[in-house]
Amino acid sequence: MQLSANQIAQLLNGTVEGDPNVLVDQLAKIEEAQSGSLSFLANPKYEQFLYLTKASIIIINDDLVLAQAVNAGSTLIRVKDAYSAFSVLLEKYNTIKLDKRGIEEPNFIHPTSKIGKNVYIGAFAYIGPNVVVGDNSKIYPHVYLGDNVKIGNDCTIFAGVKIYFDCILANNIIVHASTVIGSDGFGFAPQKDGSYSKVAQIGNVVIEDDVEIGANSCIDRATMGSTFIRKGVKLDNLIQLAHNVDIGQNTVIASQTGVSGSTKIGENCIIGGQVGIVGHISIAKGAQIQAKSGIGKTIEKEGSKLAGAPATSFNTNMRAQVVFQRLPELEKRIQELERKLKQYNIESEQ
Amino acid sequence: MQLSANQIAQLLNGTVEGDPNVLVDQLAKIEEAQSGSLSFLANPKYEQFLYLTKASIIIINDDLVLAQAVNAGSTLIRVKDAYSAFSVLLEKYNTIKLDKRGIEEPNFIHPTSKIGKNVYIGAFAYIGPNVVVGDNSKIYPHVYLGDNVKIGNDCTIFAGVKIYFDCILANNIIVHASTVIGSDGFGFAPQKDGSYSKVAQIGNVVIEDDVEIGANSCIDRATMGSTFIRKGVKLDNLIQLAHNVDIGQNTVIASQTGVSGSTKIGENCIIGGQVGIVGHISIAKGAQIQAKSGIGKTIEKEGSKLAGAPATSFNTNMRAQVVFQRLPELEKRIQELERKLKQYNIESEQ
Amino acid sequence: MQLSANQIAQLLNGTVEGDPNVLVDQLAKIEEAQSGSLSFLANPKYEQFLYLTKASIIIINDDLVLAQAVNAGSTLIRVKDAYSAFSVLLEKYNTIKLDKRGIEEPNFIHPTSKIGKNVYIGAFAYIGPNVVVGDNSKIYPHVYLGDNVKIGNDCTIFAGVKIYFDCILANNIIVHASTVIGSDGFGFAPQKDGSYSKVAQIGNVVIEDDVEIGANSCIDRATMGSTFIRKGVKLDNLIQLAHNVDIGQNTVIASQTGVSGSTKIGENCIIGGQVGIVGHISIAKGAQIQAKSGIGKTIEKEGSKLAGAPATSFNTNMRAQVVFQRLPELEKRIQELERKLKQYNIESEQ
Repeated sequence: MQLSANQIAQLLNGTVEGDPNVLVDQLAKIEEAQSGSLSFLANPKYEQFLYLTKASIIIINDDLVLAQAVNAGSTLIRVKDAYSAFSVLLEKYNTIKLDKRGIEEPNFIHPTSKIGKNVYIGAFAYIGPNVVVGDNSKIYPHVYLGDNVKIGNDCTIFAGVKIYFDCILANNIIVHASTVIGSDGFGFAPQKDGSYSKVAQIGNVVIEDDVEIGANSCIDRATMGSTFIRKGVKLDNLIQLAHNVDIGQNTVIASQTGVSGSTKIGENCIIGGQVGIVGHISIAKGAQIQAKSGIGKTIEKEGSKLAGAPATSFNTNMRAQVVFQRLPELEKRIQELERKLKQYNIESEQ
Repeated sequence: MQLSANQIAQLLNGTVEGDPNVLVDQLAKIEEAQSGSLSFLANPKYEQFLYLTKASIIIINDDLVLAQAVNAGSTLIRVKDAYSAFSVLLEKYNTIKLDKRGIEEPNFIHPTSKIGKNVYIGAFAYIGPNVVVGDNSKIYPHVYLGDNVKIGNDCTIFAGVKIYFDCILANNIIVHASTVIGSDGFGFAPQKDGSYSKVAQIGNVVIEDDVEIGANSCIDRATMGSTFIRKGVKLDNLIQLAHNVDIGQNTVIASQTGVSGSTKIGENCIIGGQVGIVGHISIAKGAQIQAKSGIGKTIEKEGSKLAGAPATSFNTNMRAQVVFQRLPELEKRIQELERKLKQYNIESEQ
Repeated sequence: MQLSANQIAQLLNGTVEGDPNVLVDQLAKIEEAQSGSLSFLANPKYEQFLYLTKASIIIINDDLVLAQAVNAGSTLIRVKDAYSAFSVLLEKYNTIKLDKRGIEEPNFIHPTSKIGKNVYIGAFAYIGPNVVVGDNSKIYPHVYLGDNVKIGNDCTIFAGVKIYFDCILANNIIVHASTVIGSDGFGFAPQKDGSYSKVAQIGNVVIEDDVEIGANSCIDRATMGSTFIRKGVKLDNLIQLAHNVDIGQNTVIASQTGVSGSTKIGENCIIGGQVGIVGHISIAKGAQIQAKSGIGKTIEKEGSKLAGAPATSFNTNMRAQVVFQRLPELEKRIQELERKLKQYNIESEQ
């Protein structure tokens, strides 16, 4: 896909400085861009690269005053906000890249399922009984949709995602490869002989609009009722959400974090990677939890900033960590105090 | 599937109070149940919900004395133990839900494989050469069973599970979606030039009866011999078991825990989530290990309770964690002691 | 596959002591070997097993002097280096085990793709438009290769691996089952209303020669440019590499470790399991990072040994951990000092 500076300027409502006919066929960072690339400069910190880059076209802010001439081969496009303009282009580029349509063979589409308009069904996709796939949704190869699964409109379910029976996904949801939705919660009743008896997990998973879930994550179905992922939640790769968890609207969770059963996380939380959260607690909205923290009890205060395992306030943890590294020195100081005091004691008794 | 109060009472050997013909078609928690739902009350703490619920049928204990009338639309079924009775129903419900039988097309079933009676083989399942699948077992879509894999009777292998060659699963085993069994152990011999040479991993994985493994977990094959998962073990999602690990009977391990190579874990251990256990050690039976612990050496005492990274006894760790958070204060107290002692020193010298 | 002592001796350039015609059909550890097995003794610590083993053939070092007679059924093969010789056999055994060739049906091979000579394409493999698969490479069942993916020569892509569009794998690479390569980086721009807008991820993943990646790992594509895994890197299972990460040559990373976006790790590093590394930092070559560490800032010194979360030098962390467990005792000693000092104070004022 080749575009000229002129075409891009029209797309972004910008003005061209240089050759309006120069062509680009890829996007690149300004410090790495070669001839034929389109790049952008938004952060003044990187202005030096503007005069060094080999990019054929660079998008810059309207108000940027050039400190020197750019390379002879570089054409500039001035726009109101270079970062936003470039994001728009990225998005358009990606949409074109991922614009799969049609139904590939072989596939397994159960006759009782309902498939919407303008969909993509990849080869080897499995669409079970009574499944619904909404308009404009993409079901990549090797996806498994169990009995009664509902997928809304404009969803992208990447290759190898497995969704167990009865789970419901709303609209505009992205699920990355090999993620599992609706596997059994980890519920077992201990028996007198030391063995465990399985507690049937008959609930489901409900995912609201605009959610994105990374690759190889696991969202367990509820024992009864539903595990909920609310509107706008963003989950990274390799995340574990146990049965009956409820993740509040617009909360983001980084990779390898785990949330135990029945825990409810509020809206707009930001949770780092490798965090562990115990079951049956709630976390107030707006909480920010540092990577690797361990949350062992309910967080009641909105907007709490937490760190450590077990977690305390971010500031308490930071200060304690600083002292922690000097613990051997502290112990020596205590020994020295004990020695001196003992000496005084002896002296004063003499 | 609709059932009447009468039918359910007969199934559970209970007695009906109210309309014996009222119908239900789903199960629900008592606090969430709507008309048409079957629910139960076992814990007296929730008795209030018995008088508020919209459930059409509620299973209660024989000896429960009603404090007030239930809703007009609610029928009661009295049984000896409401919790157990409801579990029985859950289990029956689930068995019906998951009762897949037959062989779907397209599939890949190697002519040298042996498939038992009354099985389910989903579309796109891959059954390699010399594979054995026992009676009543279910092989979901996109499962891969490599050469010589043996699956016993009454197993459920959910969608997308990958089992490498030579691995052996006994009877009544459940493996959840996208789990990998028999991948190569992480074994490399360092070379003089800084590179690594692969150590071939020619062993297998042996899984005994009644084991359940969650989704997206990884069980590596042994370098030689076998990685063992003993009878009745329950593993959660995203767990890592390295080569030659041996997990003792009825041990349960929560999500995102990893066990390094050749480590042997005893029977009836309870291991929390995100625990890390180093290689070449053993853990005595009955050990309880708190979430996020790091186990760096052999645990010899049976029934040990451990926490922390590196782990110590649970109690030691708890007490140390409490003081940890006051470390900055402790340091100030030491400074104050030093200051005072210095002052005395000066005064006593005067 | 049966081999005689004579055949093995010829293969390894060794000499036979005992029956040159005895046959073996499996490999085993010396302490577990049964009749019909081939084993080896390299570590003198295990010499006792040489006289107890039921192995039919044991490979030993040329210079080993027998302390007593071996079992009547055991034949010895003497070689210069028993460990290396056995490794050679392991490798040969594995090569034969994994020697799949040919193209199984059904499959999806796009007409625009290019498939090399002497390959294995398993049933249900998906080879997308413009994909290249090099000579002698093995694409197992349920593998997904998106548009324009390039796989070099002598690669093994195990069952269920998903590789997104535009990713490039060089030669002699092994990727274990269900690993995902090229999923979107976790990039979202916060909006004024608390929601997040997706930042398109248009880069790719580039993997150099001789890399091995474990099962169920996730390697995200770059936002722009490439996520790099350099020559000879070895990654274990369930690892997370975020967008634009760069892992240096011959670095090894153990299971369940996560590396955040844009972080650059040097050559020949050794990183333990369950480590977390923040984004936008660099780690000098030769660093050794203990399991469960949390790396929060750039490591500039080559060969650093680090431990803890947040990490410090390995020795500092070890010493602090020792004192940590005695924190309650330390606090009591401080209290005692305070009490005594107060007492002196009172006495001296009297």
